[in-house]
Amino acid sequence: MIKNYTGQTAISKTLEELKDKDINRVFYVACGGSSALTYSSKYIIERDSKILAAEVYNSNEFIYRSPATLDEKSLVVVISHLGNTPETTAAAEFARDKGATTVAFTYENESPLAKASDFRIDYQYGPQVNPADSRNILIIQLTLGLLKIKEGHHKYDALVSSLPGLQYTVDKAIEKYTEKSIDFATKYQNEKMIYTMASGSNFGVAYTFAICILMEAQWINSHAIHAGEFFHGPFEVVDKDTPFVLLLGLDETRYMEERAQKFLNKYGEKLFILDAKDFDLSKIDIAIEGEIASVLHLYVLRALSREFAKVRNHPLETRRYMHKVEY
Amino acid sequence: MIKNYTGQTAISKTLEELKDKDINRVFYVACGGSSALTYSSKYIIERDSKILAAEVYNSNEFIYRSPATLDEKSLVVVISHLGNTPETTAAAEFARDKGATTVAFTYENESPLAKASDFRIDYQYGPQVNPADSRNILIIQLTLGLLKIKEGHHKYDALVSSLPGLQYTVDKAIEKYTEKSIDFATKYQNEKMIYTMASGSNFGVAYTFAICILMEAQWINSHAIHAGEFFHGPFEVVDKDTPFVLLLGLDETRYMEERAQKFLNKYGEKLFILDAKDFDLSKIDIAIEGEIASVLHLYVLRALSREFAKVRNHPLETRRYMHKVEY
Repeated sequence: MIKNYTGQTAISKTLEELKDKDINRVFYVACGGSSALTYSSKYIIERDSKILAAEVYNSNEFIYRSPATLDEKSLVVVISHLGNTPETTAAAEFARDKGATTVAFTYENESPLAKASDFRIDYQYGPQVNPADSRNILIIQLTLGLLKIKEGHHKYDALVSSLPGLQYTVDKAIEKYTEKSIDFATKYQNEKMIYTMASGSNFGVAYTFAICILMEAQWINSHAIHAGEFFHGPFEVVDKDTPFVLLLGLDETRYMEERAQKFLNKYGEKLFILDAKDFDLSKIDIAIEGEIASVLHLYVLRALSREFAKVRNHPLETRRYMHKVEY
Repeated sequence: MIKNYTGQTAISKTLEELKDKDINRVFYVACGGSSALTYSSKYIIERDSKILAAEVYNSNEFIYRSPATLDEKSLVVVISHLGNTPETTAAAEFARDKGATTVAFTYENESPLAKASDFRIDYQYGPQVNPADSRNILIIQLTLGLLKIKEGHHKYDALVSSLPGLQYTVDKAIEKYTEKSIDFATKYQNEKMIYTMASGSNFGVAYTFAICILMEAQWINSHAIHAGEFFHGPFEVVDKDTPFVLLLGLDETRYMEERAQKFLNKYGEKLFILDAKDFDLSKIDIAIEGEIASVLHLYVLRALSREFAKVRNHPLETRRYMHKVEY
């Protein structure tokens, strides 16, 4: 019987139930943009946990690779907004058959994914929703909560105390970049290829902007480059004509992003440098700035994507294959 | 004092020394193409090991993320051909300071990386070298050997018994694709963007072809797409004008690659489909076919890269930034 928790209490209720479970591995299993939302959670666990291993899997890869460690000590976090991604539902069923505990982030209570999971965490969705109630935050909150109940980790409380100020913080971040976003989208609306780049907890945001916005929603070629890998191959494509969207965050890996920025400023020209140091973080606990920065990047890039859609007259919803043809 | 083993016995000597060490995690730490060589090892460990966790890290990301589990129970495999990649040497020193055991794959005995590591595995290098003596195979062999000494895994022996037939197998694979390679490189020499795609143990090969060959050595835009992620965003860029290099392997994830192939055959046109089912594997133990296939892909794509270099009159060694400017 699924435990279906709603709204603000969903995380704490779920954590309460996970408290006495022996867990040694967390698998984040999803596809595309849903998967990208979990990269920062893997980052957090690997950086901070002494007892948990964390892995991000594409849903089908998870099933076919069939990790030998997947068992009753595993927590499997599955994510699909409408809950009807067949691969992810199959992954949840697969995990449950192996004895793992499954937590679903899905908007639809009656979706196949919700039905295939032990817990469902309800969230709000849409442009008017407070970011504190969105899955963007709730996934990180679950991860930090898990570290708190298992290892006494301090960042969960820092996150919770920052939530009331999050809407303000997101609004200010978007506002700060509005002019730059309009400018970049207008100037480079006809580009055939736009790279994105980041490292650490921000890499998932660079990835989702590349595959879900530029490629999927705008049909522009793209590739998310890891800022640490940049100098070991990819940077040879840089020239004044190649656009880059570079994220600079506030986590431990920022140096890599700064190093890439220095290079791009010298040899590139068509640049959208999104720097978390520009954000107003006065309402955010300093202990959680790095994690919040990656979420803010996501909101600013979504605003940028709306500018692209507008000037290119290519609505973000337009598809030629997805849900339209057989595949 | 570094243990410096040479040639065919390097793996077995190293394994002998690791036998009594308590190891619970393997970190593969390198940059770019060296890092890509380790993806299939991570795949193997996650699929088969009940006691080891495996992680692939870019060298700087490894240092900055500073995994909490990195300790004296960690084995850190560091890779840099010339052994002078500063990030990777720093990573080896960082790992040693944490008490981890470090194994270096580096060609130069006196290189900084060799000096910073506990073990060095010597290998041969160059176009005339038997693939069995190359690091492409030796890295996988170390991984399988580790699983053998720790968990009695069966594939190590299957690999060793297949090594005498490897040169023949590689030669036949390259030969089989020579005509197709010349044709693809000739027809699409002026393309501005070429995608690569694979899943499972082949993904690292798709990644290295994208970043080290197309981007670094040919200055062609590229992006390695995971075949399971393809249908969750990236596939919206597909059209008759967008070239794709798709790898089909023989591991458990092949279905994802086949699904992508079906789609590309229908909606794409400029395709290089590299299918391991075309390879002559008569001299390879069937138990190790999946792992060998990913290595064969690498050799065939290197041959393809030579054709690109030839027809484009752009030698594979040409760089504009790497080792030429400050970065």
